[in-house]
Amino acid sequence: MDSIGQKIENIKRSGGYRELRYINSAQGSSAVIDGRRVLLLSSNNYLGLCNDERLKEAAIEAVKTYGVGSGGSRLTTGSMALHRELEERIASFKKRECGMVYNTGYMANLGTISGLTDESWTVFSDRLNHASIVDGCRLSKAKFVVYKHCDIKDLEKKLKRYKGKNNLVVTDGVFSMDGNIAPLKDILRIAKRHGAMTMVDDAHATGVIGKHGRGTEEYLGLEGEVDIQMGTLSKALGGEGGFIASRKEIVEYLRHRAKSFVYSTALSPATLATALASISIVESESFSREKLRIDSAWFRAELQAMGFSVPDGVTPIIPILVGDSDLGMEFSRRLMESRIYIPCIRPPTVPKNTSRLRVTIMATHKREELEWALEVLKDLGAELGITRGVGADG
Amino acid sequence: MDSIGQKIENIKRSGGYRELRYINSAQGSSAVIDGRRVLLLSSNNYLGLCNDERLKEAAIEAVKTYGVGSGGSRLTTGSMALHRELEERIASFKKRECGMVYNTGYMANLGTISGLTDESWTVFSDRLNHASIVDGCRLSKAKFVVYKHCDIKDLEKKLKRYKGKNNLVVTDGVFSMDGNIAPLKDILRIAKRHGAMTMVDDAHATGVIGKHGRGTEEYLGLEGEVDIQMGTLSKALGGEGGFIASRKEIVEYLRHRAKSFVYSTALSPATLATALASISIVESESFSREKLRIDSAWFRAELQAMGFSVPDGVTPIIPILVGDSDLGMEFSRRLMESRIYIPCIRPPTVPKNTSRLRVTIMATHKREELEWALEVLKDLGAELGITRGVGADG
Repeated sequence: MDSIGQKIENIKRSGGYRELRYINSAQGSSAVIDGRRVLLLSSNNYLGLCNDERLKEAAIEAVKTYGVGSGGSRLTTGSMALHRELEERIASFKKRECGMVYNTGYMANLGTISGLTDESWTVFSDRLNHASIVDGCRLSKAKFVVYKHCDIKDLEKKLKRYKGKNNLVVTDGVFSMDGNIAPLKDILRIAKRHGAMTMVDDAHATGVIGKHGRGTEEYLGLEGEVDIQMGTLSKALGGEGGFIASRKEIVEYLRHRAKSFVYSTALSPATLATALASISIVESESFSREKLRIDSAWFRAELQAMGFSVPDGVTPIIPILVGDSDLGMEFSRRLMESRIYIPCIRPPTVPKNTSRLRVTIMATHKREELEWALEVLKDLGAELGITRGVGADG
Repeated sequence: MDSIGQKIENIKRSGGYRELRYINSAQGSSAVIDGRRVLLLSSNNYLGLCNDERLKEAAIEAVKTYGVGSGGSRLTTGSMALHRELEERIASFKKRECGMVYNTGYMANLGTISGLTDESWTVFSDRLNHASIVDGCRLSKAKFVVYKHCDIKDLEKKLKRYKGKNNLVVTDGVFSMDGNIAPLKDILRIAKRHGAMTMVDDAHATGVIGKHGRGTEEYLGLEGEVDIQMGTLSKALGGEGGFIASRKEIVEYLRHRAKSFVYSTALSPATLATALASISIVESESFSREKLRIDSAWFRAELQAMGFSVPDGVTPIIPILVGDSDLGMEFSRRLMESRIYIPCIRPPTVPKNTSRLRVTIMATHKREELEWALEVLKDLGAELGITRGVGADG
């Protein structure tokens, strides 16, 4: 038998070993890690709702009224009236006939793709799509075709070459590690031309882009055009869980076929109540989203001006590309010494030689916190030779 | 493109269509469904902890202190001190070096099996193992060999025939739809003889069997012998989530390799705090487990005496085998008219021609509730011709 200890050694030697960091406070713009308060500059809590008083109140009320657990799977004794209410709310938020709640975003992608498709299908997936989409395709009997990242020509070429009886094109709306937005208008055009269904993973777009936070479709003026909208109840929504929104028949079909939906204890009452309250906040409070957009644009421009390798973009996900994993880890360690937490994201989460510090802005960051972070980043970037010197004397 | 509407029609024609029933109250021995209070006789809330005041208090305190969400994945910004505390608590509860929390039991089985094994492995799985184990095997590159249900001879025959470089034998501890206990002592002996690792899914055993509720190992006097213990924080524990407990190196390895662990927003503070409180209750309150055992044995014997086809067993899962799906559905419908909720479990969840009413007892059921349920079951069993008449005049 292979030694698992040996495999761990191999991971360590390759520089891929992961240490866990434990947060011992609520998630605000800062948090307490290893006993020290540090600025959180890499959270997915984009709107700061993880510690919102209104959501806390909703969760507490739900615990008082409905207890702590659902007690069963959705098809047996675990469906609560709160599930129905939340699924209807998701449908209205995403402007679809039906919503369907899964326990996590991972399970939503896994269950939806593997439940919808079979050997008569071909799934076309962007190379940088989230791992849960890849696992959904691997679990399905469908043929799995990967196209180059956001490359419409490659997608069309592969649709021509590999399309089967049934076809699905699936893409992240906002790519989680890069923060860029998929060219959805072109993807929809090409998919329609080839008779393919479309699915968008809006985990990092929901609540973040579009006037009402409905995500990539709304942001690009394409509302109602995607066949299956997927999103999460965590990240901008501050809680826990995943969902899809789609046509009634697709949801009805998946309720029977998505194993991750059928074979799991349903989400607990507090999680459902939190999500219900959160969607209303997200939909109505565009000022929070607008602040996030403005701060993110400014922070990104400042990093670019300092000479960091940061791509253009409009979302709060701002990758500082470092390339080398060891250098990225050192950068992250030094930032932590200065009380800023930005983990280094390494392969296999991102492609080889693209290790990065994935900066994210939150609507609850104060301007002075961000200004201070920029100063620290600038000094360290120069000292470690990560900035190209453009802004090193600025 | 195949019509999804047509596929739904096919499901309906085959008798496999599922309606969702929504519960609009906390989960007690009874619950409110469609506006009427009905006796819950099919919940996985075995110890009644879903609505336990101590767990509610723990959840509320966690929301007040830590907010409603974790804000990130375990390897980035989502690991909380509560995760560490819970993982250590799971380790001590299950008497292993390390615990590892997943968001659901489904994700625990999926991530553990697909993360541990690769093409050098063969996984041997009981034919009636939970769907999440099957999906974990399908997602893995390992060879997947199914052995006959609890059949030691078949397991050994297949180990001889198919064993590879690395081998894993995986079984439910308590089978979810039958309530029987795996012949773990024999399985361990055979696995050891052939150098195979072992994994037990104790989702329906944790909190339910064994003096301290540690599950199948403890019940059978085999503590510490299984390589990987899997369980859930829902069911008897009343909350939400899944876990494994194992050796340090296995957990350390899976933290890197289990995609369902890596690529998912971590569980929220209230869920973690609930589980922590729940384990202590489960471990110490053996009187609750003892009441459950006695009530279950009595209820099972009564059903058998009435002439229902009910297998022998010692767990609170008591299947009333009906066989025909239509008859099972009619039985369930009629029970609901009499205010007793026991859904009919049909293929593909159970093998063909084994549709059943899966009765489960809870420690919080009152004796008079169960006595009344037995009367209703007896009358309906006779009227529908389900009992063989043995006890019809009793």
